[in-house]
Amino acid sequence: MKLLEDRIQKDGIVLDGDVLKVGSFLNQQLDVPFLSEICKEFYRLYRDAGVNKILTIEASGIAIAALTAQYFNVPVVFAKKAKSANVASDVYKGTVKSYTHGVVVEAVVSKEYLHKNDRLLLIDDFLAKGSALEGLLEIAKASGATVVGAGVAVEKAYQGGGDGLRAEGIRVESLAKIASMSKKDGIVFC
Amino acid sequence: MKLLEDRIQKDGIVLDGDVLKVGSFLNQQLDVPFLSEICKEFYRLYRDAGVNKILTIEASGIAIAALTAQYFNVPVVFAKKAKSANVASDVYKGTVKSYTHGVVVEAVVSKEYLHKNDRLLLIDDFLAKGSALEGLLEIAKASGATVVGAGVAVEKAYQGGGDGLRAEGIRVESLAKIASMSKKDGIVFC
Repeated sequence: MKLLEDRIQKDGIVLDGDVLKVGSFLNQQLDVPFLSEICKEFYRLYRDAGVNKILTIEASGIAIAALTAQYFNVPVVFAKKAKSANVASDVYKGTVKSYTHGVVVEAVVSKEYLHKNDRLLLIDDFLAKGSALEGLLEIAKASGATVVGAGVAVEKAYQGGGDGLRAEGIRVESLAKIASMSKKDGIVFC
Repeated sequence: MKLLEDRIQKDGIVLDGDVLKVGSFLNQQLDVPFLSEICKEFYRLYRDAGVNKILTIEASGIAIAALTAQYFNVPVVFAKKAKSANVASDVYKGTVKSYTHGVVVEAVVSKEYLHKNDRLLLIDDFLAKGSALEGLLEIAKASGATVVGAGVAVEKAYQGGGDGLRAEGIRVESLAKIASMSKKDGIVFC
């Protein structure tokens, strides 16, 4: 999606440790009018998929999930990150590794908010190795709900998470796919 | 606001420990069409205040902040919760006590996203003792920005946080103000 690619080229900053900083518009500052515009594309892609609920994970997925939900006119459920010890029995859970922070957390959703007749669209801001989406898929599977697919704003395609999920048969749509990035050569899209 | 009061009466559950559970529509499931409707009221209240940015705190403030920002056509900045040890020097910080979880965290915002000419509207889902808003005020003050006021969905008025802030001269607008609540007598609004 050219609109997002252009914005990433303009405002994204490649940092050490393979980090793309887009904090000025996607996290932690949220350019809401812009994000609402790009979320329209998730609706265009999934409008015929029978989505009745959007599932995301706190914190940076919440804004784009909520803005996307407006087009679908459906609720959002967000998974909370919990220390394993705190996880109660009345939740569905999935394991999420954060490569940025080097920690493993349990993502949890109360059982009352996911049902086996739900048709879920997974939404997140970033897809790198795919761990957050894998955690959400684990939660969805435990609930018996159907996952119609995933929508992410930025996919770091060279990290392989997106293709791994596609190989498992999951539909994954990314608004901007990064083929490579470095401080020296900048950001190259697929 | 009758719309929100009615919804709280219908779907809110009073739990032990003075907790009002509204997870089915405000957190962790977000009834986005409904929340967008109630956020319009924040715009009506603050439309003439020259708001150029909304400041909130992760995670449950993000959705209503983003939905409110659409009416104002402004960006959202959300404070992240950090262990004190992790707080870098390039951030503004404020202290937030969570009475629900019994912990103290630092709320931080990168200095690049708040400026002294900003006119901030603070948004959060709940106001009880006022600690989250106090933390956001501390951050705003450190940045030199002007706080035009705060908007919260649910104020537990009997806990005194809102009146404490009003006594400090902060404009605080709540969409639903709870005078008292108990399992036995239910929820009574002001």
